Amino acid sequence: MLAASRDGLEGLTIGTLAEQMRMSKSGVFAHFGSREELQLAVLKEYVNRFVAEVLRPAVRKPRGLPRLKAILQRWVAFLAREMTRGCIMIAGAFEYDDVPGPLRDEMVKIITGWKGEVTKAIRYSAAEGHLRPGVDAHQLVFEIYGLMLAMHQDARLLRSADSAKRARAGLRRLIDAARAIE
Amino acid sequence: MLAASRDGLEGLTIGTLAEQMRMSKSGVFAHFGSREELQLAVLKEYVNRFVAEVLRPAVRKPRGLPRLKAILQRWVAFLAREMTRGCIMIAGAFEYDDVPGPLRDEMVKIITGWKGEVTKAIRYSAAEGHLRPGVDAHQLVFEIYGLMLAMHQDARLLRSADSAKRARAGLRRLIDAARAIE
Repeated sequence: MLAASRDGLEGLTIGTLAEQMRMSKSGVFAHFGSREELQLAVLKEYVNRFVAEVLRPAVRKPRGLPRLKAILQRWVAFLAREMTRGCIMIAGAFEYDDVPGPLRDEMVKIITGWKGEVTKAIRYSAAEGHLRPGVDAHQLVFEIYGLMLAMHQDARLLRSADSAKRARAGLRRLIDAARAIE
Repeated sequence: MLAASRDGLEGLTIGTLAEQMRMSKSGVFAHFGSREELQLAVLKEYVNRFVAEVLRPAVRKPRGLPRLKAILQRWVAFLAREMTRGCIMIAGAFEYDDVPGPLRDEMVKIITGWKGEVTKAIRYSAAEGHLRPGVDAHQLVFEIYGLMLAMHQDARLLRSADSAKRARAGLRRLIDAARAIE
């Protein structure tokens, strides 16, 4: 994963990976078949790690706001750990948005799937009476995603030290505004 | 600008530009000197257009909320026009965030400068009594930027038809929450 996280999916080649893993290029090639299959394998590994570190521990929390909050806290923490090297999913999404093919398709599937999980957590929160019954889950997910993207840009391009703090403050404000009146 | 907007700054080469402009490569090279100078020229042209279409008409509005709202409306409209091809500033910022050099430096300068303009408009709005006196302008700019980035990702990667509408809804909610109580 080292090569991919440092140079992004685009910088990932059979050659750089072979070098880092001290394998021959033909050895890496025999394992992955092509550069594209290598990139897809890296994305798959990313998703596995994301599910293990964000989704799986969060769904152990009770349905509703406790679970939604756990998802958001773990998501920010996951991203924050990626910030020294950049997140291959976020950078990759901007890199490949106009490159049709299996890699773009896979990213669309991953991001759509993840948005679906967050939408579900928001709907459970409304069903449990923790968020307003009429809360627009799609709009909320859109705004949550925006905070994550802003965190990435601020930390990576502008090298702000407080981007995770700002993302958390934004998430708190978003959730508070969507709360049911008690 | 055609080549840059379709393939991003990274896809921009003396060759593709020469082809599109029906000039010889050496003619383009003589004009720009290097690929990097060409990319910097494209960024400069982008900024000129952004200032002409977003900032300059907005600052004709009265200080305070009318000006801030004009900035945000025009920014979304500008981005919406870029969506079929992608915004070279947003895509470029993710592409070059780990590539030290004049191009990255220029992007940092442009984005920092623009954030400064929006911060100023928020502070004027507070000074005019339109927004809460204690409003955290940096936090608000961070969240505004997030909505613009989410709009770009939704429109470009996920091909959502309603991303500008969602960005506008988020901006409205942000501004309403920051309003002074009348």
